[in-house]
Amino acid sequence: MAEKSPRGLADVVAATTSISDIDGLVGRLSYRGYDIHEIAGRISFEECVHLLQRGTLPNSEQLDGLSAELNEDRSLGSTAESLLPYVVDGGTPMEALRTLVSALAVDDPDAEDSSPDANRRKATRLVAQMPVLVARFQAQRSGSTTPDPDPKLGIAGNFLFQIAGSHPAERVAEIFDECLVLHADHTMNASTFTARVIAATLSDMHSAITGAMGALRGPLHGGANEAVMKTLTSIEGGVENVDAFVRSELDSGRKLMGFGHRVYKTEDPRATHLRKMSEELAGLTGKSRYYEMSRRMEQVVLDAKGLYPNVDFFAASVYHALGIPTDLFTPVFAISRMSGWTAHVIEQHEDNRLIRPDSEYTGPHDQHWVPVDQR
Amino acid sequence: MAEKSPRGLADVVAATTSISDIDGLVGRLSYRGYDIHEIAGRISFEECVHLLQRGTLPNSEQLDGLSAELNEDRSLGSTAESLLPYVVDGGTPMEALRTLVSALAVDDPDAEDSSPDANRRKATRLVAQMPVLVARFQAQRSGSTTPDPDPKLGIAGNFLFQIAGSHPAERVAEIFDECLVLHADHTMNASTFTARVIAATLSDMHSAITGAMGALRGPLHGGANEAVMKTLTSIEGGVENVDAFVRSELDSGRKLMGFGHRVYKTEDPRATHLRKMSEELAGLTGKSRYYEMSRRMEQVVLDAKGLYPNVDFFAASVYHALGIPTDLFTPVFAISRMSGWTAHVIEQHEDNRLIRPDSEYTGPHDQHWVPVDQR
Repeated sequence: MAEKSPRGLADVVAATTSISDIDGLVGRLSYRGYDIHEIAGRISFEECVHLLQRGTLPNSEQLDGLSAELNEDRSLGSTAESLLPYVVDGGTPMEALRTLVSALAVDDPDAEDSSPDANRRKATRLVAQMPVLVARFQAQRSGSTTPDPDPKLGIAGNFLFQIAGSHPAERVAEIFDECLVLHADHTMNASTFTARVIAATLSDMHSAITGAMGALRGPLHGGANEAVMKTLTSIEGGVENVDAFVRSELDSGRKLMGFGHRVYKTEDPRATHLRKMSEELAGLTGKSRYYEMSRRMEQVVLDAKGLYPNVDFFAASVYHALGIPTDLFTPVFAISRMSGWTAHVIEQHEDNRLIRPDSEYTGPHDQHWVPVDQR
Repeated sequence: MAEKSPRGLADVVAATTSISDIDGLVGRLSYRGYDIHEIAGRISFEECVHLLQRGTLPNSEQLDGLSAELNEDRSLGSTAESLLPYVVDGGTPMEALRTLVSALAVDDPDAEDSSPDANRRKATRLVAQMPVLVARFQAQRSGSTTPDPDPKLGIAGNFLFQIAGSHPAERVAEIFDECLVLHADHTMNASTFTARVIAATLSDMHSAITGAMGALRGPLHGGANEAVMKTLTSIEGGVENVDAFVRSELDSGRKLMGFGHRVYKTEDPRATHLRKMSEELAGLTGKSRYYEMSRRMEQVVLDAKGLYPNVDFFAASVYHALGIPTDLFTPVFAISRMSGWTAHVIEQHEDNRLIRPDSEYTGPHDQHWVPVDQR
């Protein structure tokens, strides 16, 4: 007999994983046993990709090997390139990128092969392709071009280079690199869970990742960082008007995006790092407006509601200071989370069981058919 | 604290629904309270779409209204049409169709609107577009053309018409119509659950359906009907060799596709109808080979393993007799299941909560970072 579960499967264990772990009560996130505070700012996104997809922090030889693979894997293939002009019109970037990620499979030599080796190759390839896809999308819609990737730069530096058309300052690229590490994995979030449900039918990597892209774009998931930025820019004046704005929102019963989390009962440990990065970027760029507004807002919300900022809250001011257009915040999240999604698909396929829950029927019973002209 | 659940969420209630219900012990499937035995062969797929998406069997006026909408909604839009030539190469039809379904959003005027009215319009549109998309894909890869839909035919008749290029016999179209009714919904199967997980982030209808397409193609889900056909065609000779084949497979520990089900402990009620349809088509077409082999195989498997055929088993010989290419069996399943998927997205959005389960961490703990050159 079916057992009744909390709505939204909150606290229901849907899978075992050795990729990441959260202790929501103390606010701890770890990747394969490394506390995020132990590695944030110390490892590159490439090292993080190795950790998540291949299980260990790489030694120098392994890191060089992975970096060489990533450099070789950046080509989108002719199909995704051909589709770009058709899908940029209308809709959000995530709509176009969902179609384009799906289309990457056409030119992927391993698309139909879900063996461990093929899955590893596809996982690396998708991590390499995703930032290029976002940059090419941005160039396509703005009528500009993207410079070819610079093999001396990593994923973070190359993305900023391709988006801006000029080389980023070294420290700015480092900060973005740390952003990518912080967003890389987060246990059974909705998009990762989507990828695992799809993979558990023994469907392929691209099907799972395309589904994850569709989940990430939802306002309750990856869309939240964009919503935070829209909130910040909607406040007229500046930091002096934050208090009145927050109180008005709360009094009207509206939800403030970027606060609270299904899992964390204290501060999201990623927010701790993003707050510092937002502050540093404010100093580096001289643009402190949104950092200051964010600092004030978190204080007012904590006092009024006891809610802590989550990963999306300070990501907004950080991405803005990095020069990333607001509607690319969720695609940038996808660039990072691609590493976790693909690791989870690999893990799901390694020890698979179909994920097929039950439902509780709440509709009418014992209906009887009558011919259409008697209804 | 998280509660541990059975692997694959078997028997865990993940959602409430008033769309369909299964009683696996007695082998009962119902759509909104109508037992499948009450409606199969009595209602058209269009009536079934109304039942699932809008909650009731339509009266004549409602049915005429829906049919008119479906007739108007068959255009794919210029984006999906433009993409067709690029995505047909290589890969399976479901890979191409996943990309194309995602691309339908570009020209959908309601793509970014998840209001109840917009969701209802998108649901109807996707049901109207899906068979045309499959037919256009088939024409594209075979270098032929599809006739324009015939407004006098329903969805089933039009699909057979567009695939074959000539009008189907009336009874043949009726049988295919009944197939579409039988496959239309089935509670929290993996693709429907995928659609609901995606929709629960408040992401849009096309994101949810694109994810469902990716799940359906998995060999443990929609890919099973194709696997059954491949099994049947792999048996040399004919019905006289079925016994030896089945015993050899079972002795080798291989799984026979089309038998057993996570939910049904007795015969899948849909198999009961599909068996009759397979028999009738064998008589109508004079091609009885795969029907006879299927009958023998189900008997041998039942005797040897006590396993009953599921929906995929007789669907294979039915679709084959209808002239549908084997690698379009899963896309045909998608044509039908689109009605259920879209109904579930509508229902999820009506009373939403993020679906975000927990996971159990099984990896190492308390790892400490060391510099890359010391690893």
